[in-house]
Amino acid sequence: MLIQLKDLYILSIWTKPSCLRHFPTTIFGILPFLNLQTQSFRHHPAKLTKTEPKLIYAYDNAFHGFSALLSEDEVEALKKSPGCISAYADDIVTADTTHSYKFLSLNTATGIWPASQYGKDVIIGVIDSGIWPESPSFNDDGMTEIPTKWKGICQEGQEFNSSLCNKKLIGARYFNAGFRAADPDFPITMNSARDTDGHGTHVASIAAGNFVSNVSFFGYASGTARGVAPRARLAVYKVLWESGGVGSDIIAGIDHAVADGVDIISVSIGTRTVNLYENPFSIASFGAREKGILVSVSAGNRGPRTIRSGIPWAVVVTSGTIDRWFAGSLTLGNGKTFAGWSMFPARATVRNLPLVYNETLSACNSSQLLSQAPDQSVIICNTTITDEDFPQMSTDFSSVMNSLSQSNVRAAIIIAEDPSIFRSNSFPHPAVVITPAEAREVINYASNGDEPRATIDFQETVIGTKPRAAPALSDSASRGPALSYDGILKPDLLAPGVLILAAYNPQIMGVRNGNNTFLSTDYNILSGTSMACPHVSGTAALLKAAHPEWSPAAIQSAMMTTANPLDNTNQPIKDMAFNYRAATPLGIGSGLVDPNRALDPGLIYDASPQDLVNLVCSMNFTREQTQTIVRLKYNCSNPSSDLNYPSFVALFSLAERGMMLTRTFQRIVTNVGNGAAKYTFKLEVPENTTIRIQPQTLVFRKKYEKQRYSLTIRYRADIDVQNRPGSISWIEENGKYIVRSPIMVSAGADNFG
Amino acid sequence: MLIQLKDLYILSIWTKPSCLRHFPTTIFGILPFLNLQTQSFRHHPAKLTKTEPKLIYAYDNAFHGFSALLSEDEVEALKKSPGCISAYADDIVTADTTHSYKFLSLNTATGIWPASQYGKDVIIGVIDSGIWPESPSFNDDGMTEIPTKWKGICQEGQEFNSSLCNKKLIGARYFNAGFRAADPDFPITMNSARDTDGHGTHVASIAAGNFVSNVSFFGYASGTARGVAPRARLAVYKVLWESGGVGSDIIAGIDHAVADGVDIISVSIGTRTVNLYENPFSIASFGAREKGILVSVSAGNRGPRTIRSGIPWAVVVTSGTIDRWFAGSLTLGNGKTFAGWSMFPARATVRNLPLVYNETLSACNSSQLLSQAPDQSVIICNTTITDEDFPQMSTDFSSVMNSLSQSNVRAAIIIAEDPSIFRSNSFPHPAVVITPAEAREVINYASNGDEPRATIDFQETVIGTKPRAAPALSDSASRGPALSYDGILKPDLLAPGVLILAAYNPQIMGVRNGNNTFLSTDYNILSGTSMACPHVSGTAALLKAAHPEWSPAAIQSAMMTTANPLDNTNQPIKDMAFNYRAATPLGIGSGLVDPNRALDPGLIYDASPQDLVNLVCSMNFTREQTQTIVRLKYNCSNPSSDLNYPSFVALFSLAERGMMLTRTFQRIVTNVGNGAAKYTFKLEVPENTTIRIQPQTLVFRKKYEKQRYSLTIRYRADIDVQNRPGSISWIEENGKYIVRSPIMVSAGADNFG
Repeated sequence: MLIQLKDLYILSIWTKPSCLRHFPTTIFGILPFLNLQTQSFRHHPAKLTKTEPKLIYAYDNAFHGFSALLSEDEVEALKKSPGCISAYADDIVTADTTHSYKFLSLNTATGIWPASQYGKDVIIGVIDSGIWPESPSFNDDGMTEIPTKWKGICQEGQEFNSSLCNKKLIGARYFNAGFRAADPDFPITMNSARDTDGHGTHVASIAAGNFVSNVSFFGYASGTARGVAPRARLAVYKVLWESGGVGSDIIAGIDHAVADGVDIISVSIGTRTVNLYENPFSIASFGAREKGILVSVSAGNRGPRTIRSGIPWAVVVTSGTIDRWFAGSLTLGNGKTFAGWSMFPARATVRNLPLVYNETLSACNSSQLLSQAPDQSVIICNTTITDEDFPQMSTDFSSVMNSLSQSNVRAAIIIAEDPSIFRSNSFPHPAVVITPAEAREVINYASNGDEPRATIDFQETVIGTKPRAAPALSDSASRGPALSYDGILKPDLLAPGVLILAAYNPQIMGVRNGNNTFLSTDYNILSGTSMACPHVSGTAALLKAAHPEWSPAAIQSAMMTTANPLDNTNQPIKDMAFNYRAATPLGIGSGLVDPNRALDPGLIYDASPQDLVNLVCSMNFTREQTQTIVRLKYNCSNPSSDLNYPSFVALFSLAERGMMLTRTFQRIVTNVGNGAAKYTFKLEVPENTTIRIQPQTLVFRKKYEKQRYSLTIRYRADIDVQNRPGSISWIEENGKYIVRSPIMVSAGADNFG
Repeated sequence: MLIQLKDLYILSIWTKPSCLRHFPTTIFGILPFLNLQTQSFRHHPAKLTKTEPKLIYAYDNAFHGFSALLSEDEVEALKKSPGCISAYADDIVTADTTHSYKFLSLNTATGIWPASQYGKDVIIGVIDSGIWPESPSFNDDGMTEIPTKWKGICQEGQEFNSSLCNKKLIGARYFNAGFRAADPDFPITMNSARDTDGHGTHVASIAAGNFVSNVSFFGYASGTARGVAPRARLAVYKVLWESGGVGSDIIAGIDHAVADGVDIISVSIGTRTVNLYENPFSIASFGAREKGILVSVSAGNRGPRTIRSGIPWAVVVTSGTIDRWFAGSLTLGNGKTFAGWSMFPARATVRNLPLVYNETLSACNSSQLLSQAPDQSVIICNTTITDEDFPQMSTDFSSVMNSLSQSNVRAAIIIAEDPSIFRSNSFPHPAVVITPAEAREVINYASNGDEPRATIDFQETVIGTKPRAAPALSDSASRGPALSYDGILKPDLLAPGVLILAAYNPQIMGVRNGNNTFLSTDYNILSGTSMACPHVSGTAALLKAAHPEWSPAAIQSAMMTTANPLDNTNQPIKDMAFNYRAATPLGIGSGLVDPNRALDPGLIYDASPQDLVNLVCSMNFTREQTQTIVRLKYNCSNPSSDLNYPSFVALFSLAERGMMLTRTFQRIVTNVGNGAAKYTFKLEVPENTTIRIQPQTLVFRKKYEKQRYSLTIRYRADIDVQNRPGSISWIEENGKYIVRSPIMVSAGADNFG
């Protein structure tokens, strides 16, 4: 999307290095590229129309090029200059949004934590809204000296001294030259890497927060917080500002992260940009990946709609629940108890109060209505009531909460089914949510009991498989196929992303409490693929520490082929968006990341940077578009959409509907187990589909030996059969390894318009 | 006060032991005295008119007698029975209401804590609303085996198994036979020693709570809680029920405490009864004192009005502040900060919000008015505005808070002077209280600043002498002279009693948060002489442990003669009720209890039970009234109002106004220092008064030697000169001991009508 600034556009101009030398000096004058980054652009756009063009950033690591503030005429002139590949308008991106380590079976006794020394010396670069450096999660107790490979800095800025970095938080930079050029009037309230939002702090502590005891979110989820890789280092690159971020800043952030020497890049930011050659994450990730850096990105929180920017060369992570339940336990006067849902952020006193059920009141969606309820009572509210004639009067959880908090009702029992309730930390009035099934018994007691009474206890945290198995795919997560490119199955992995406790900006609003009180918190509980992504980034850091020689593709393959498609009741992972029906690989990718199994995956699907170039070359992009992604020194002589990827998606386009189609995939697997091994396959064949595997067994005589196989899938392009998941698992003959890849037969993205 | 139950009265009948044997069986039939206590009286009074009379309690330790449910006719018949002394109707009593140990200079390195082994093996009996036994303050970590002298029980009851007692909470009993007989219809919701109120739990943990780390009141006063005597034992006697308690139950509680073997009795309960011969605390305390048990009672919270039941044979304790301030720090947009007062029970987010001052709104005492205030702003409220024409419209802190919590105003800056704000834990809306002097600067900034803004930080706890010296006498504390008997100066001591953090019932409402949310808390902050009393009970326990041979009078004398009349800025303790004017001994008694100095007081004013009998004999009571207090075996041959007490009060009656009066006091002091000592006196002479001391020096050749002196005071009975405090200090010649007694010239209680 273009940012219209009267006559001005912010443009990212992708170019080959020589281009900079060839630019007419009449456009840029003398370009002190590397010092311009902190130059002030606080002028009004109108005043800028007559000024010289301004260089914003020069990029040289994840990408070669620069971004600049130019007039439309200047852009046209530039496009005609020799050596310039392309120019795109800067885009605005927005942010998507700790028992989870236990849910991932991380433990100090066995597996990847001890094997990786908890991620020792691996550096995770977090591209986000910055950091709250004083958070106890970023203390460096137990951290060793910073490795000499680190070339980054702790950039000084507003309320941010370089002394705020330490052996845990080893680097911090901030990038807003693009943002400020886009809108010189927009006030940058915190011109430094300090996180005024909380999102970046949260995400960073999920990936690699240190151990912090006695934390909780207003009494919920209390315990010792820690990141997935508690001994990894963090370097933060602030690219998100109050109203979002722009592509030029994001590329600058990733570019510096690569130059600084990070090992893993974690990006919990979404973009509305679809095209891979315009998406700053796609472009910069390609460069990072080329330099051996794994990039983990969040799938987005658009609900059961297609992923916009499913980047083939990044690990795309979606969000699932964990086995934790925040309970408000309801006890009726007759002694019957119900473990309902509550996240009211205080220990409210609701003990033995009169319980009122009144059908007229039970919509509970206006404070005027609730003024008829008896004071100091507990009332029953029903959000499952819908009035089709007056949809604007319909009851939803948030309007019930608002009305209650403005009323004199002491507490409520809310009948609700909407799964979105169970991923929000907003719970401003004392209440407990129960199911319609439970409600029947409660209403019966309230209607027929003699002086019915209710007690609610808050701040209870329950761990286990009840009332819901976990993980379940969050209803808010974006789903495949990706609009950007649907030939690679996205998302890749599911990770904990629902109601995750992690560090936060302690000075801003965490939750609302009551009608008009906002509370802040050192540790917040947030939901979204933003929270899932750093779980995978942290896992990748652990794998990098345990296997420093592995490529990004190998790390990704290890995580994907060992991921678990089943929940903790050994049933297929369910989808909250579809009434807990089984989720498909378009929802959960390969399944829940399993760090301990990923440590020793048996086989690896590896891919070189050239393999990725071959993929881009197959995408029917123009030469300029291709060059924008893969840079200059590429070889498009062997384009191939059949990337050696640990998952399979067989598509049909709109035009192919109703036809029988055949697709063959070639794969090469590398034996990373110790010594000789023999594998045979096991298939779960998608409905109305046949699959042929060649050869039938894979025999490896030694470690690092490679073997090829082909998978041919024949399927009808039937749009009416939406759910055609399957899988292939290569099983080591002694059962030591199961190397699983999901297979999805699906309508291609163009079917979804 | 009589409790009228149609034709029935609840009566406490004081009698000599033989009386029980002589009672006509037609009245009581067979009397299984000791088993009747838990008998049910859940009948309607009307139905009882034709039933047999019921025995409620038989008393045999603190008092000889019993209480019974009788008709008026039966009472009249009983009064004529041989051997019966008196009969009074049962009265209803009501409840009055931890850095404090540091404020009292208790420490592990030196002084009374190590000397007393933290009160090891001393048993404190707490007469109150019971106990929440699961509170961590009553854990028995570090407690040794229960001493064999203990004869009490852990009485089973509703939600109270005997296993709930331990080596810290060694006994628990409950007494409501009197209460239930008084009102058979009143539901006893918790028929056991379990505290459904929180008052008893709070008081018990102040006296002898064990060490508990990481406690706070919603973020305020955080730290490690502990009682004054953390190694003393607790035995609780529940006599207070939902609507109060009755005298018959209270006497039963104290009676059992004495029989069980407690060393100290702590009573934070007030009564409206004035007459010492009708006041159950007075009667039972006399008996306890006779058996060597010190009784500590709260002075009451009637404000600067006379103490109703100042018991000469109990230590009467009043309440002062400590050196702790709960701050909400206010920061204006211009950077100026103010350490205001706040106890808002959460970390509200009030950061850089628009600051609004509007004279029309600043009363802030109606939500209708506040609806005109801009949303999401901080407004300035002024509680010092008074409208004499419309006093009902006047602004007070609590109505401002109520209106704010119903408004859309995010936070307020409240200008206030009322000292009662600074002893209440009720702070339901985000706000900070500042003084009128500070307000001038804030209003000026709000009125003239460019886009004025304000930030408030909550949950701050400040320790020190700023902004107020401590202790200061609480404005809510009752003052001497005592209506019950004004010949002994009451109160005796001041102790911490304002905003004291201690254990609480976690299931009931602790504070209000917002318009209609009530929060509970494991540790509550409460104020009142109720909280001061157990500080003295705990100190007495420490002294008893260090000096097991000391009489109750000796313990009391040690605490009083070493108490500090100065605050922590070495100025006389101030009185919050009178705009921080210097307090008098009628407010603070001897001053702030100083446990470490009390350990080694130099001299002791001792008094035997017979001395107390002589005092009662001087009180112009009838024989029956006197016998009710002092029991049967008394000798009234030597009545004397000149009790050997460590304070002096020279009164004048209404009839003596304007006259010159002379009063001579005889005192005997016992040398409890080691070896020979010589003392000389130092006087602070009250205004318009002369004092003569005879002899001028006191010479002791050895420990335990006694010396007499006389103090003659000549004064004008001048009602216009209210404040005539003074003191006498006996100073050991090497300065090792200062044995101080306050002297007060005052109008007697009859002057106050």
